[in-house]
Amino acid sequence: MTDPAKAPGNAARRRGRPPRTESARTRDRILAAAREEFSAHGYDRTSVRRIAQAAGVDPALVHHYFGTKEQVFAAAVEIAFAPAPGAPDTLAEGPPDAVGERLARFMFGVWENPATRAPLLAILRSALTDDTAAAVFRRLVAEQLTGRVAARLRLPDAELRAELAAAQLVGTAVLRYVIRLEPLASADLEQLVAHVAPVVQRHLTHP
Amino acid sequence: MTDPAKAPGNAARRRGRPPRTESARTRDRILAAAREEFSAHGYDRTSVRRIAQAAGVDPALVHHYFGTKEQVFAAAVEIAFAPAPGAPDTLAEGPPDAVGERLARFMFGVWENPATRAPLLAILRSALTDDTAAAVFRRLVAEQLTGRVAARLRLPDAELRAELAAAQLVGTAVLRYVIRLEPLASADLEQLVAHVAPVVQRHLTHP
Repeated sequence: MTDPAKAPGNAARRRGRPPRTESARTRDRILAAAREEFSAHGYDRTSVRRIAQAAGVDPALVHHYFGTKEQVFAAAVEIAFAPAPGAPDTLAEGPPDAVGERLARFMFGVWENPATRAPLLAILRSALTDDTAAAVFRRLVAEQLTGRVAARLRLPDAELRAELAAAQLVGTAVLRYVIRLEPLASADLEQLVAHVAPVVQRHLTHP
Repeated sequence: MTDPAKAPGNAARRRGRPPRTESARTRDRILAAAREEFSAHGYDRTSVRRIAQAAGVDPALVHHYFGTKEQVFAAAVEIAFAPAPGAPDTLAEGPPDAVGERLARFMFGVWENPATRAPLLAILRSALTDDTAAAVFRRLVAEQLTGRVAARLRLPDAELRAELAAAQLVGTAVLRYVIRLEPLASADLEQLVAHVAPVVQRHLTHP
């Protein structure tokens, strides 16, 4: 019989590193707690201690998995920008004359989904009130959204165009989902896509 | 010689109501302090007591002039939406095919001006984190912006169109002035108007 204290699982637990599947669950629980805390209280009023408490883990474990508060924030909100697994090219590939519609559907898709709406709200609220969170937002938008879209445009000012298209999408999301301005907040999704897609398209490809 | 205690000015001061010009200065000082506090700390973390302290007045005077915290907030941010004196029709009147450019120039005008940028930042930050502030924002946008623009449109969905035009403007302001996404943040104003105006115009008047 092996000494239980020498079994790999126990040794790992003693070092504070749970086995792989448990580790993934713990990470997910920390990220979910982080999204909720950042969304409810904003970046500056959320601490690693508070996130750890909400996730039911030791603060050291949060630092172990993610590093600083800024890195927890980036990890917690990245899901809202990352393409869905298996659909990595939805935004930047496909017919160029339908890129506006693809971007509009992507934006409404993540905001209509409660699981991705929370991180988006967290990032928006935090980025508007805190410079560090704004820097994370800048990096994510550039890497995941405008950079990928602009890379495929053949026009001058490609980055500026991608950012102005993003402005239409971000502004629509803010007024519909956060401010809840009517009739925008209750408008039918297909009607909205019909209005927003041509404008995003125009930003990106109009000569 | 009159009894100084009976002079009208002193009597007014004793009742806590300063004479008219001083009264206007006090109101302005309270509004400036309110804008600064709401902008720096958001709606929920700003109290009438805090605003009074920043303005160097008694909290009772803030209540006397403005009423509740919600009413102080509405008064403090209304300036950002109210048309400049003498130019009440800039947004809704003038040639219909230049309404997009007028709205774009109006938006960039208030954000480029430090005096009106502060109340806009205050309202945006607060509206994204607090339901009461969001309700004030909804009312101001509807009364001062989309309502006035929509009233002059002859197309179906006039209000929705006005709100989607506002979404482009709000989103552009957020990414340029708050998040400071590059190259948008440093882009030349005329270049931006050239990109944004046709899109706002399209929202409002494209059949």
